[in-house]
Amino acid sequence: MARTTGSDGEKTEAAVREAAAGLIARYGYEAMSMRQLAAEVGVQAAALYRYFPTKEDLLFTLMREHMEGLTAAWEMARPTTADPEARLAAYVRNHIAFHIERRHSTHVSNMELRSLSHDRLTRILRMRTAYEKELRAILRDGTEAGVFSIEDTGLTAMALIQMMTGVIVWFRPGERLSVAEVTTTYLSMTMRLVGAKIEGAAAAYSAARPFGRSAAGV
Amino acid sequence: MARTTGSDGEKTEAAVREAAAGLIARYGYEAMSMRQLAAEVGVQAAALYRYFPTKEDLLFTLMREHMEGLTAAWEMARPTTADPEARLAAYVRNHIAFHIERRHSTHVSNMELRSLSHDRLTRILRMRTAYEKELRAILRDGTEAGVFSIEDTGLTAMALIQMMTGVIVWFRPGERLSVAEVTTTYLSMTMRLVGAKIEGAAAAYSAARPFGRSAAGV
Repeated sequence: MARTTGSDGEKTEAAVREAAAGLIARYGYEAMSMRQLAAEVGVQAAALYRYFPTKEDLLFTLMREHMEGLTAAWEMARPTTADPEARLAAYVRNHIAFHIERRHSTHVSNMELRSLSHDRLTRILRMRTAYEKELRAILRDGTEAGVFSIEDTGLTAMALIQMMTGVIVWFRPGERLSVAEVTTTYLSMTMRLVGAKIEGAAAAYSAARPFGRSAAGV
Repeated sequence: MARTTGSDGEKTEAAVREAAAGLIARYGYEAMSMRQLAAEVGVQAAALYRYFPTKEDLLFTLMREHMEGLTAAWEMARPTTADPEARLAAYVRNHIAFHIERRHSTHVSNMELRSLSHDRLTRILRMRTAYEKELRAILRDGTEAGVFSIEDTGLTAMALIQMMTGVIVWFRPGERLSVAEVTTTYLSMTMRLVGAKIEGAAAAYSAARPFGRSAAGV
């Protein structure tokens, strides 16, 4: 379906996707009906099927676009340097920034894999694995270079991703901490978790931390 | 409702709770019907209402029992020592062991807060806060004693809990790693993340790690 950028059709489709992510995050995919979604967007149910012939097409689109967006963001953020600490810091910054801006689609992507058909689940998991592999490569390179000290690259990657994505559960903009402050603290935690040598990472990141945060936070 | 231990009624109620946790984990709370649940358990829908007058009573019971179980497990596991490292290690071990055994109810507890009424949500969040407060107290004591080095007690507690609970997302018994191996690696990561002094924690935990894990894992 070729569409002009910013056409009415494209705007409607974007509105559908946004409303769907919100409804699924609120009620769950299985409980959301296309009728309910149409009412939320303010269109006829039949109009939805023009964009998404089945409800699962819609779910798959949300998940695919989430992973494509995350992958594209990381391609942009990925530093050219081979330095594992700089690459890890970029990965953490990008991961937190991307997810904190997309609470609903993150929620959908993490929770509703159970409702995808086998083939589509495989496609999403493949994209996810490719993205996580980037983190594992950074961790492995850092370990081989002797700048990280970790036991298990796979477990460390999972632990970091779950710790970082978990920010969306409790973070609310405009409360005690800014995104920048949260990211700085998560960077420090990450660098310690991977056993980064103190001269390198930890010192650099603690210098970047706003004054007085340590005392205030504890 | 006083019931004899192991009575038929109690067994049915336990079967209902287990089946409900499984169905909610699979389809989401809003999508699960009491009729579907009754069929799963093999009783009449009317029988369910004897135990759980409303669907939300059932959801609340699942969440309350999850938190009561977690709190009770921690009361049992909590060491008498004041040593922050020993207390943190006990917290990590208990948290992982408890959740890994209860994938479905963990899933329900984390995902379905959105469907609780305001008062019940408040009650569950209060239990959760009390449990997390135990971790924050350990982190604060360790920081004050100079054995931990962290920026923000609250953020560190959230990061650790999300990292640990995240184990249920990928861990499957009988695969590459045992619960004991996973726990050992998570203990090492935790101790590094909180900046525990190397002489104490890290050395002790790395000694406890099975030989060859480091090389095999990386």
